[in-house]
Amino acid sequence: MNVHLLAVGSELLTPLFRDTNSLYLTERLNDLGYEVAFKGVVGDEPLPLSRAVRRSLEEADIVFVCGGLGPTGDDRTREAVAVVLGRELVLDEKILRTIEDRFRRRGKEMPEANRKQALVIAGAEVLPNRNGTAPGLWISHGGKTAVLLPGPPFELRSMAEESVWPRLPRRPDGPLVRTVLKTTGLTESEVETLVHDLYPSEPSRRLTILASPGQIELHLSSAADGVGECGSGLAAVVREIRGRLGSRIFSDDGAELEEVVGRLLRERGLTLAVAESCSGGLLSHRLTSVPGSSAYYAEGCVTYGNRAKTERLGVPAATIARHGAVSRETAAAMAEGARRTSGAEIGLSLTGIAGPGGGAPEKPVGLVYAALSDGAGTITAKSLFLGPRDRVKFQASQKALDLLRRRLLGVEIP
Amino acid sequence: MNVHLLAVGSELLTPLFRDTNSLYLTERLNDLGYEVAFKGVVGDEPLPLSRAVRRSLEEADIVFVCGGLGPTGDDRTREAVAVVLGRELVLDEKILRTIEDRFRRRGKEMPEANRKQALVIAGAEVLPNRNGTAPGLWISHGGKTAVLLPGPPFELRSMAEESVWPRLPRRPDGPLVRTVLKTTGLTESEVETLVHDLYPSEPSRRLTILASPGQIELHLSSAADGVGECGSGLAAVVREIRGRLGSRIFSDDGAELEEVVGRLLRERGLTLAVAESCSGGLLSHRLTSVPGSSAYYAEGCVTYGNRAKTERLGVPAATIARHGAVSRETAAAMAEGARRTSGAEIGLSLTGIAGPGGGAPEKPVGLVYAALSDGAGTITAKSLFLGPRDRVKFQASQKALDLLRRRLLGVEIP
Repeated sequence: MNVHLLAVGSELLTPLFRDTNSLYLTERLNDLGYEVAFKGVVGDEPLPLSRAVRRSLEEADIVFVCGGLGPTGDDRTREAVAVVLGRELVLDEKILRTIEDRFRRRGKEMPEANRKQALVIAGAEVLPNRNGTAPGLWISHGGKTAVLLPGPPFELRSMAEESVWPRLPRRPDGPLVRTVLKTTGLTESEVETLVHDLYPSEPSRRLTILASPGQIELHLSSAADGVGECGSGLAAVVREIRGRLGSRIFSDDGAELEEVVGRLLRERGLTLAVAESCSGGLLSHRLTSVPGSSAYYAEGCVTYGNRAKTERLGVPAATIARHGAVSRETAAAMAEGARRTSGAEIGLSLTGIAGPGGGAPEKPVGLVYAALSDGAGTITAKSLFLGPRDRVKFQASQKALDLLRRRLLGVEIP
Repeated sequence: MNVHLLAVGSELLTPLFRDTNSLYLTERLNDLGYEVAFKGVVGDEPLPLSRAVRRSLEEADIVFVCGGLGPTGDDRTREAVAVVLGRELVLDEKILRTIEDRFRRRGKEMPEANRKQALVIAGAEVLPNRNGTAPGLWISHGGKTAVLLPGPPFELRSMAEESVWPRLPRRPDGPLVRTVLKTTGLTESEVETLVHDLYPSEPSRRLTILASPGQIELHLSSAADGVGECGSGLAAVVREIRGRLGSRIFSDDGAELEEVVGRLLRERGLTLAVAESCSGGLLSHRLTSVPGSSAYYAEGCVTYGNRAKTERLGVPAATIARHGAVSRETAAAMAEGARRTSGAEIGLSLTGIAGPGGGAPEKPVGLVYAALSDGAGTITAKSLFLGPRDRVKFQASQKALDLLRRRLLGVEIP
């Protein structure tokens, strides 16, 4: 079963557009056991558009064509697919009334341009659009299937959930088994060195390392072998990797570090106060991005200047004067101060030099101290992160979250 | 001049990979006056790979093939292109020595697998790789050009800057002129209604509206007409849009709202303190993402609970009791408290309900109050934002930044 995804729209061929639809479709297709063999992006002009559709319909069993269903002159997907399939476009009175109703409910007259959205390729099933005017189309043609979906992600997703996945038979050999192991605290080459002999030789199994600063992920997938992950050869690889990477793996269920830490805090009924300097609020932002985080996130201070560190957190001016704002001692005093002044059980802090300015030979850009204070005492960690300001900020927040995770789990702090 | 971009690699067909190479290539190609007509992503299997290369070489004048130049068995781009062009692969001794040297400098022996990276398509020009082992290839063939580049973005970019753009003649009609107008405070349909009659009729000019929650951008581009933006027809459209959108436009040079606000604060020599509830640190994070922001960003408090609002910012407990934590009065007291307790010239605050929980009929999820306090007094703004938690947080931060921008510029607060 060969699946192609085509995205239609000249705006998708500019430097700014990011294609999120194809990632969503791929994920859900994989879940049903389908692999995507080709993805293409083509503009609105009729000739390249119909050529791309024709080619994909020749090569693939199922073709998703996303976008170009709007009311304007640039929206030509319906026409292009009709031409390729040699079918007529017919006006669907029911769709027309639905679109008219949609405008009427907002107290408006339907513009004449929207009339074309009621045109349907003869013989197609109509997929209703709850969140927009353009309906989708499902077309069976000579043993192949073409699925036309609207381009706006919000419309595409709800339509796919409601009308596409229920129509698509689950592949007999089951879903692609996928496991994602997320790690922090190791570089890409360290992970690579640890697992280089585990790359599967079977073409149906795959191990990919996805690296970003502060987070290295191992993505394992397998065309299922009927017995599920537990009995499959992939499971043996996953077990081996777990053994080698140990507590560097913080998640195997897609959760990000802030979610993992949030679960642990919630389970233990603990509250957290945050004191940040170089990360500038990112640590608090990540922690509070988790729904329900108000249960454990007490408060945060972004103490950029020394005055704020002293007045908000009670960091002794002498500590800053003696050791500097970026030091193990100041980080510890910030974490202790956050805990003491907030009444939370745990204080977590970051201080460092995010760059690009402010570095010095003995304290270079990227130098970051993290500290954690709880009833048992205060621990600190020193790191040197590479990269521009946003990367230093993110890696610093990873370090603090990982320090907290390890403390809560009682595992070794590297 | 028809340009196709092909990305090669089965890992690019999984749900997690994002294609940044094509956006970079598109931007630089546009600068040289080339438009991209098609983008494709294909896996490593020889048949689909050579089919995709063949088709693009038929349809396009210039084809970029990115990825699949590595040392492993999965890297088949060289072979596929050689087959399509009917040319031999020959071992290039100079490349072989360069790769061997690269390993030797790191104290290692070159693995046998890397030998294939010294294979070159007969007649191709070799593009050196400063950051990896795989050289690129530039091949002229029957009036067409194929450019083979390595997949890792770091390697691809430096190779393109050094060896590709200098080889590609600037199009005689000059670069694509591009202007991006960024707005906040209007919905997509409001912007659409204001500019719908300004869509250019010439196919060489384009107006695209890029909408995300809290930020609507108008992207205008034009195949240049030799006289630059100022004298072009596009400039007239830009002027007309400026007239209609007025102070809703916050940037025309790519700057985000936090950078615009940062420039204004710096110019005026003012400092800012931030107090956040629902946005959970995002406002501080955005402000401190701008290099040099420590010049004007004094400090921030993420006061999630009522206790923190009272103790950190001096918000009267009676205000919270009478009006609620999410209220105009509490927002005002937070901004005033941030200003007073920090000593900064300006206090900026946000309080609201980010959701998904915590909403009530009279105070629904998405209700957000922003407030600004300065020497001249305190102003507040009430908003109701739609969407999940992350969107509410982002829109809230936009609202606060825009309130600050308008106050600093002295323009009307809507």
